[in-house]
Amino acid sequence: MTARVKTGRLIGVGTGPGDPELLTLKAVRALGEADVVAHFAKRGNAGNARAIVDAHLKSGVVELPLLYPVTTEIDRREEGYRSLIKDFYENAAAAVAAHLEQGATVAVLSEGDPLFYGSYMHLHVRLAHRFPTEVIPGVTAMSGCWSQVGLPIVQGDDILTVLPGTLDQAELTRRLLDTEAAVIMKVGRNLPKIRAALAAAGKLESAVYVERGTMANTSHIPLTQKSDSSAPYFSIVLAPGWSSRSQIAKAAE
Amino acid sequence: MTARVKTGRLIGVGTGPGDPELLTLKAVRALGEADVVAHFAKRGNAGNARAIVDAHLKSGVVELPLLYPVTTEIDRREEGYRSLIKDFYENAAAAVAAHLEQGATVAVLSEGDPLFYGSYMHLHVRLAHRFPTEVIPGVTAMSGCWSQVGLPIVQGDDILTVLPGTLDQAELTRRLLDTEAAVIMKVGRNLPKIRAALAAAGKLESAVYVERGTMANTSHIPLTQKSDSSAPYFSIVLAPGWSSRSQIAKAAE
Repeated sequence: MTARVKTGRLIGVGTGPGDPELLTLKAVRALGEADVVAHFAKRGNAGNARAIVDAHLKSGVVELPLLYPVTTEIDRREEGYRSLIKDFYENAAAAVAAHLEQGATVAVLSEGDPLFYGSYMHLHVRLAHRFPTEVIPGVTAMSGCWSQVGLPIVQGDDILTVLPGTLDQAELTRRLLDTEAAVIMKVGRNLPKIRAALAAAGKLESAVYVERGTMANTSHIPLTQKSDSSAPYFSIVLAPGWSSRSQIAKAAE
Repeated sequence: MTARVKTGRLIGVGTGPGDPELLTLKAVRALGEADVVAHFAKRGNAGNARAIVDAHLKSGVVELPLLYPVTTEIDRREEGYRSLIKDFYENAAAAVAAHLEQGATVAVLSEGDPLFYGSYMHLHVRLAHRFPTEVIPGVTAMSGCWSQVGLPIVQGDDILTVLPGTLDQAELTRRLLDTEAAVIMKVGRNLPKIRAALAAAGKLESAVYVERGTMANTSHIPLTQKSDSSAPYFSIVLAPGWSSRSQIAKAAE
């Protein structure tokens, strides 16, 4: 074929937090229209995003797994790691671009919401200026978590702060004291530090720990009842705002 | 009938930010199962949440509009306003409870995500301890806005702060200086102050203004090009984080 092919279309598809029913109608339609479905994954593990959309992939669709390089043996702070990851994203973008240049519609899966801490962002900044691009938002992991718990998080003029658990304890404490509500991501081995910071900020009693929010094997528990021993990296701690909530709850007792 | 009826079920249904295609499959199923669909609205205006779900209401469903009292003539800071609003939520909860007590499944619509600044929260805290309750998360307005713009908002260890535009200028500036990314809600007449705070924090150049995100009549524009004259109260300003984003964009130029 030497005829000029049509230009492809890039779609960043938010798959939501884990429950396949939390896909949007728009995401389902995009999956039905896609010629190619790409997703980030580790070798030997198809990943959550791929599992979430399983029932909606059309037969004959081309799957393009973007496999992270093995990274556990390299320190994340080292130049070697950064260089490896940068090369990986460049190569992933090139692999997606090759399909787009052939005129394909390429859906890139992203757990939760694509532009909210999603790996898709690394493709978006490399490709969105070159190809027609659409981003389909998704339900975030944090929304999935507080909905599963039934925990009102913010109301009215409340401030919400989303924090990485990797911050040091003093910094976590300072920021927890300076907000009504907080969501703390990247918990894992940071849990003892997070617990101490919440206690120092007077927010420990109301905090909730959530693992694999909205997935089939999810669990949640008041943080005061959770041991420090075994928290996955992607678990979340919720510190709710909306002080009137507790007042009403007390009044209702 | 004197026979004991089954207990009803309360479902807080996130409708997403505006585009009806951003409803989740779970929300659509809940609407199909609901005997009663309640929604908050102003008199004479059915409201966005009701419009979003229009195609999915089953015939014969009972609609229960929860109409806010006329409030424009009373100052929000006055005791009279607070009392009026509290009475309104008490009455709304009682109206929903009356259906639940009859064994009905009642879906309460909530624009965006129910527990994230949603009016549904006022019913949740009054009813969730009395009736089986489920909350279906939705795509938030802010996710809808940054996806529509194609604006990566946070990556890696970025901190995101969600701020009400009602804060005073010094406080807005302080908080904007203390975060990588920010979402500023309740813009409206606060826009000149928000603009000044973003400028003081060095975040004005990258900020984006979004009106009615993902709705049919939506619009967005760099904040530097937006006039102060006519911003609706529920418009949003996005100040993106992820500094490497701009570095990559520059490298690609």
